[in-house]
Amino acid sequence: MTAYTATVTVRLKRGVLDPEAETTQQALERLGFELSDLRSADVFELDLDADSAADAGDRAEEMAERLLANPTIHDYEVDVTETA
Amino acid sequence: MTAYTATVTVRLKRGVLDPEAETTQQALERLGFELSDLRSADVFELDLDADSAADAGDRAEEMAERLLANPTIHDYEVDVTETA
Repeated sequence: MTAYTATVTVRLKRGVLDPEAETTQQALERLGFELSDLRSADVFELDLDADSAADAGDRAEEMAERLLANPTIHDYEVDVTETA
Repeated sequence: MTAYTATVTVRLKRGVLDPEAETTQQALERLGFELSDLRSADVFELDLDADSAADAGDRAEEMAERLLANPTIHDYEVDVTETA
């Protein structure tokens, strides 16, 4: 068994309203910053022991499907690295 | 001016309690998943026009300092890519 870190990035699908990002962008603009868009995402870094990177990725993907992301409104991405 | 995307990742500093991550980890364990640790982070993807990647990075860093991160409890990382 090897220790892996799986990074799950959960983003809202295109077209889903993101009031938090909108408010953050307006606050930055009020501070004088210029930006054309701002998107927010949630990241979960999971430390887990697995036989291979592929196995760690599969398990992280299952966790994303079952709990971390809501498939109706979210897209997610899984990225696995060996823990240093 | 070129269009850049600056990705600002905001993490809690080591030692700062993260009840959201703890609850998420417990929920995953209740579903039968095994993991040794879970950390959560917020990511802001900022689209902005700048003269250079360094300039875009500087501005994103200033936004992190002034609004996106709380230096008392957060560490942040800025990563700049040219928007495709």
